[in-house]
Amino acid sequence: MFKKILIANRGEIALRVIRTCKEMGIKTVAVYSTADKDSLPVRFADEAVCIGPALSSKSYLSIPNIIAAAEITNADAIHPGYGFLSENEKFSKVCQESGIKFIGATPEQIASMGDKASAKATMIAAGVPCIPGSEGLLKDVEDAKKTAKKIKYPVILKATAGGGGKGMRIVWKEEDIESAWDSARQEAAAAFGNDGIYMEKFIEEPRHIEIQIAGDQYGNACHLSERDCSIQRRHQKLVEETPSPFMTEELRARMGEAAVKATKAVNYEGVGTIEFLVDKNRDFYFMEMNTRIQVEHTITEEVVNYDLIKEQIKIAAGEKISGNNYYPQMHAIQCRINAEDPYADFRPSPGKITTYHAPGGHGVRIDTHVYSGYVIPPNYDSMISKLIVVAQTREEAILKMKRALDEYIIEGIKTTIPFHQKLMDNEDFRKGNFTTKFMETFEF
Amino acid sequence: MFKKILIANRGEIALRVIRTCKEMGIKTVAVYSTADKDSLPVRFADEAVCIGPALSSKSYLSIPNIIAAAEITNADAIHPGYGFLSENEKFSKVCQESGIKFIGATPEQIASMGDKASAKATMIAAGVPCIPGSEGLLKDVEDAKKTAKKIKYPVILKATAGGGGKGMRIVWKEEDIESAWDSARQEAAAAFGNDGIYMEKFIEEPRHIEIQIAGDQYGNACHLSERDCSIQRRHQKLVEETPSPFMTEELRARMGEAAVKATKAVNYEGVGTIEFLVDKNRDFYFMEMNTRIQVEHTITEEVVNYDLIKEQIKIAAGEKISGNNYYPQMHAIQCRINAEDPYADFRPSPGKITTYHAPGGHGVRIDTHVYSGYVIPPNYDSMISKLIVVAQTREEAILKMKRALDEYIIEGIKTTIPFHQKLMDNEDFRKGNFTTKFMETFEF
Repeated sequence: MFKKILIANRGEIALRVIRTCKEMGIKTVAVYSTADKDSLPVRFADEAVCIGPALSSKSYLSIPNIIAAAEITNADAIHPGYGFLSENEKFSKVCQESGIKFIGATPEQIASMGDKASAKATMIAAGVPCIPGSEGLLKDVEDAKKTAKKIKYPVILKATAGGGGKGMRIVWKEEDIESAWDSARQEAAAAFGNDGIYMEKFIEEPRHIEIQIAGDQYGNACHLSERDCSIQRRHQKLVEETPSPFMTEELRARMGEAAVKATKAVNYEGVGTIEFLVDKNRDFYFMEMNTRIQVEHTITEEVVNYDLIKEQIKIAAGEKISGNNYYPQMHAIQCRINAEDPYADFRPSPGKITTYHAPGGHGVRIDTHVYSGYVIPPNYDSMISKLIVVAQTREEAILKMKRALDEYIIEGIKTTIPFHQKLMDNEDFRKGNFTTKFMETFEF
Repeated sequence: MFKKILIANRGEIALRVIRTCKEMGIKTVAVYSTADKDSLPVRFADEAVCIGPALSSKSYLSIPNIIAAAEITNADAIHPGYGFLSENEKFSKVCQESGIKFIGATPEQIASMGDKASAKATMIAAGVPCIPGSEGLLKDVEDAKKTAKKIKYPVILKATAGGGGKGMRIVWKEEDIESAWDSARQEAAAAFGNDGIYMEKFIEEPRHIEIQIAGDQYGNACHLSERDCSIQRRHQKLVEETPSPFMTEELRARMGEAAVKATKAVNYEGVGTIEFLVDKNRDFYFMEMNTRIQVEHTITEEVVNYDLIKEQIKIAAGEKISGNNYYPQMHAIQCRINAEDPYADFRPSPGKITTYHAPGGHGVRIDTHVYSGYVIPPNYDSMISKLIVVAQTREEAILKMKRALDEYIIEGIKTTIPFHQKLMDNEDFRKGNFTTKFMETFEF
């Protein structure tokens, strides 16, 4: 087992990793920018090394500074957390070359899963369902018709140079495709000076459901069931839960099997996530693989009673996993508490926390790096706390979350707590009736 | 179900009950003494009523004041917590007469279990093992010999007027009984002016192991396995855990069966605890029944995944229980954090908490009513927080507790955190090698 792990990250995830290391008897090194010198990871790690100024590119993203810190402190492994260098091929490689174990994916795995086209090709070869579409650009309207027939309606036409919905058309049936094709091309040409169009199957009522996986260096792989992360705003997850209210045993079996196939296809070593879109017919499509721990790993921990960071470290140290899958025994929900003003378009609200009091009691977990008097620097992610609840049923979990949100006192800055309170009272949310489009119409 | 519950208590248990009520959609009324006006239960309850001055006898123990508060606020039930009026026969009766449901035992049950002699008689009749001994005082040394032969050596002679170990003799074999009898009587006569002596079986290496039980008004009863509370100082529990490191499946089955018998013998309605002493041969003896929720109910909640306060309320409202027993799925430990100076004979240390930061993360639960800036009044119990951890194994739970204790920051007063830190490192504790005598020799 490792003797000393350097955590190449900040905030709650740095503290999260330190906690597990302490419980495993492993020494820890925190690295920090000058903006984070008063942070809890710095206080609770066995050693702490300043790696540069507030600007991430000169501190948390500086590979030479982090490697130097690891060498100075004689760390034998680096945990990258999420974000920053956690899925950086070069960083993984430099660690390897420096004889420091990178607790994450190999450079090859990061490369193959980081590039969308190569990831998709690997998954198709492994038999994992991907969103069907044209191979590259469509030649003409006949090609569009042929492709649509193959992948089945509804389909979506997209401008290759596109963005902001321009040059995009959803087509529900063949008789509409010619006019859609013409208008999409014209719009794309006008907007981008490029009328190249490709086609994908249009996913109706998409849900973002991901499968937590683990693999070891001996070829064993397993899944730990799903997380529903459909409640998103501009592709930022706001709330996650497990099990998904949309899940069935049959769908979990199919998605789990696909996720394990995907894991084995890249000989994946460590814990990771296979993200899928699931449509209203419970057909699912591979989106991407995350070769790192995720923010929302906590809810899986609560329902399967495993410490995923510990598993990650054990796998990196060469331990075997059983290959058994894990299934939720309880229902867990996580609300990401961000220092943002939900009444002002979620504008960041950094600054000093003047009063801080966290909820507690049965089934309530808090993962945070903040405290009374802490000053949130403006330089980083605005997430300041993860509030996780676990209960026997989804309904009980929602009621517990409401109770915990009501107890959570954070003064001096704005937070997303009022948003979460309103969400927990929303009828559609309570019924489990939501897709990734939910936030587009949620009134706040 | 009840519409509004008044909580006739203070501190963490008042907050604990409020939390569950909120999760059940039940309104709450906090009552408070003037010393507790800034407390969290007052802040988080739907209503709060001042019931008197700091002195308990004029506030938390004042039945008229509490009943008046319930009537003014139109509460249809009262939860008494633990301590104060929770096992008060008269209070239970007055609630009954006032048409307010007392969430606890009936006056009859409290009376029958509150009196030691009648409780023992009930248990013997129900076939629950009690500590064998003489029936009342011994007549002479021949009676002592006969009784000892019947209940088997070792036995203990005790002065009926006794206390502080005076007039007490442990007798290991028959040849020593005459001299022990003589010296015990002489010592008792000299110390108390009363040489009455009775006999009990001497329990070798006693462990305090209690069984959590539940019963409903339809005669169903079940147990929820054990808690080991052997780590005590002057009969005050300091640390509790479940499962007990001394437990075997066979012993749990025997103790569980006895506890269910005890529950049925008094037609018990609600959740409660049967406390046993267990000797080194794994024979066990009834000590007492607690007809209320206990401080350490939390660890049972963590390992069986049930909210015991919710069960209590549901049973009081007339719901049925299944009658199935519950077994620990994990290992949980609770440290009671007291405002006491462990370096000064655990002297109380009330006053203002200047800095408060609680640990968090996976498997860590905090039940507390304190916060940064809170002033601990000198009038009540010194327990200020319950730190509970849950993990797959006992060893992992101990390591997690160490980690959590290290993170716990409470400044401005003295706390028992340093004691718990030392305990977690103690070799005998770690091996599960401890009895109720542990603290007599634990060096701090």
